[in-house]
Amino acid sequence: MKVNGVSYRSIWRDASDGAVRIIDQRWLPHDFRIAVLDSLDDFAAAIRDMWVRGAPLIGATAAYGVAVQMARDPSDAHLDHVHAVLNATRPTAINLAWALNRCRAALRPLHASDRAGAAMRLADAIADEDVEINRRIGEHGLGLIREIAAAKPAGEPVRLLTHCNAGWIATVDWGTATSPMYHAAEAGIPLQVWVDETRPRNQGALTAWELGSHGIAHSYITDNAGGHLMQHGLVDMVITGTDRTTATGDVCNKIGTYLKALAAHDNGVPFYVALPSPTIDWTVADGLREIPIEDRAATEVSHVQGRDAAGGIASVEVTPAGSGVANPAFDVTPARLVTGLITERGICPASRAGLAGLFPELASAESRAS
Amino acid sequence: MKVNGVSYRSIWRDASDGAVRIIDQRWLPHDFRIAVLDSLDDFAAAIRDMWVRGAPLIGATAAYGVAVQMARDPSDAHLDHVHAVLNATRPTAINLAWALNRCRAALRPLHASDRAGAAMRLADAIADEDVEINRRIGEHGLGLIREIAAAKPAGEPVRLLTHCNAGWIATVDWGTATSPMYHAAEAGIPLQVWVDETRPRNQGALTAWELGSHGIAHSYITDNAGGHLMQHGLVDMVITGTDRTTATGDVCNKIGTYLKALAAHDNGVPFYVALPSPTIDWTVADGLREIPIEDRAATEVSHVQGRDAAGGIASVEVTPAGSGVANPAFDVTPARLVTGLITERGICPASRAGLAGLFPELASAESRAS
Repeated sequence: MKVNGVSYRSIWRDASDGAVRIIDQRWLPHDFRIAVLDSLDDFAAAIRDMWVRGAPLIGATAAYGVAVQMARDPSDAHLDHVHAVLNATRPTAINLAWALNRCRAALRPLHASDRAGAAMRLADAIADEDVEINRRIGEHGLGLIREIAAAKPAGEPVRLLTHCNAGWIATVDWGTATSPMYHAAEAGIPLQVWVDETRPRNQGALTAWELGSHGIAHSYITDNAGGHLMQHGLVDMVITGTDRTTATGDVCNKIGTYLKALAAHDNGVPFYVALPSPTIDWTVADGLREIPIEDRAATEVSHVQGRDAAGGIASVEVTPAGSGVANPAFDVTPARLVTGLITERGICPASRAGLAGLFPELASAESRAS
Repeated sequence: MKVNGVSYRSIWRDASDGAVRIIDQRWLPHDFRIAVLDSLDDFAAAIRDMWVRGAPLIGATAAYGVAVQMARDPSDAHLDHVHAVLNATRPTAINLAWALNRCRAALRPLHASDRAGAAMRLADAIADEDVEINRRIGEHGLGLIREIAAAKPAGEPVRLLTHCNAGWIATVDWGTATSPMYHAAEAGIPLQVWVDETRPRNQGALTAWELGSHGIAHSYITDNAGGHLMQHGLVDMVITGTDRTTATGDVCNKIGTYLKALAAHDNGVPFYVALPSPTIDWTVADGLREIPIEDRAATEVSHVQGRDAAGGIASVEVTPAGSGVANPAFDVTPARLVTGLITERGICPASRAGLAGLFPELASAESRAS
């Protein structure tokens, strides 16, 4: 999407010099910096130290890492080495292993001399596939926004609320929850987006940066405010992303999503979740009982990072000395609170039947396996 | 309550020298500092610049300000001057005008020579009345905690969740929502309190400081976390305070309270609100439609204050440049989501009949007036 009027992906091969470039997200939302990734160390650091973040982007970064390295040394030994080094950067990122395994499986049968070109085409393909999935999610979501806009007086903005950052910088382009917003903006539909701060890590600041950079009107709000806004008719629809959706439509997402779903339900506000089909976990039926929730570091809660008075990035401690902290990172929104799921194949009810209707081959593969 | 093992009020006349002292709350939760209030300027600054906060404490501080000044100059002119200066410090604080008017009305008929002593007795009485109201709220709330404790295996803590700071430092002592907690601690009932951070101003840090200083086990959590904790059976009861409760039991309180009430309702967790009867607004029937909600400064949301790496108090900006901010300060929790109201006269349903049952003289006075 756009930054200062220029279209970007979050990772790209630059037409000028062929180098792989990323948006170095460590400085967002305060500084927009671009980094070149060249050495294997560069790619490993970018993934490990979160210059890039979000499952699809991590996968694409790994694939480009393999491609750049194959141009240097296309041997079997180096292919294995690159796979091992990158795979160790973030051991729990499923997309990382998926992309690396896909690259190695595709390259191994090839002559060494063919590997560099094939690897780069594959990295481009992995990036393009992500863009295409998110583009389709956006097209389907756009239909929902069009319906809301059509019921309003001309020129009155459609008011959306989102939580966390399911945005284009967590993918290669478009994002998931944000893709309908960018599509609506391109279609000329006026928007006003309420952006939940999303403590403890304040990913809402990234969403606000994205929307502002693309020129979409938005307001950053505390996580406490959304219920009040819905009570007063100031939210037309909620759209969030998801880290994992069960076969029955329960939605695991960033902590606090459940509270917004409750408020939406209490006020008759539609609550939609945007997801690419790979995040559906066909093996889980009851999200609340079966999905373990990670309890993350206390410092994420006790300290807040931002721009200090001198313009640098600093953090301040908000908790008193000696207080305990708990930091559950995700929660599960039961399917009963979800109006619908927006996927690359269309929109369906948050239910086993709804998901199986859109993805019959995946649902039946799972039922055969179980 | 206790700080480092010593019992304090938030304002007191010191036995050693007769001086009025307060806890200077500007430094909490990071530093515990005590200030002497002596000159009229001291008292005015303490109220205006929020060395003290919370309606009951502001009223008591004003009363002590009048008392100290009457010892210097008990003339009518000075009484009027003190009233005017202190009343201008925070024009919208109802308790401030109430306390000052009460002092002036009581002192005016007296001989000048009798005013200093009478003023100090009145200030003590105003402080003591607040302590007594909150003590009674705590006794009634203790009954609820006892019931929960009795249903648990011996030694297992009662797990409470609270939002914002309805604590002893917002009153003269005990607090409102915290009073049942301190009473339970004194009764030897083990507690585990989940303390909502309460963005944007992070009053949860004050509650955490209070509880930690008194020796009550607690965990500071983001405002997003409470719903997840309730889903997993980790909250036995929610207790919050309130800024204003309607005659029908709707509860206006710090933004985000409504979201916790929704989660409590969805999970069968009792949701109680502790309130002194002066915060009941007998003139309002529909909190959602009739109570205007203040939209406060954007900087409260865009900036977060805490302790910096050097140990000083600093603030960092968390929002990107150019993003809009909205900051509604309160929300209204409909009575249907409130299990009960804990008042100084006992516990009642959040309804017109419930409140009128406990406060028949106030309810009938209002119906006569309307």
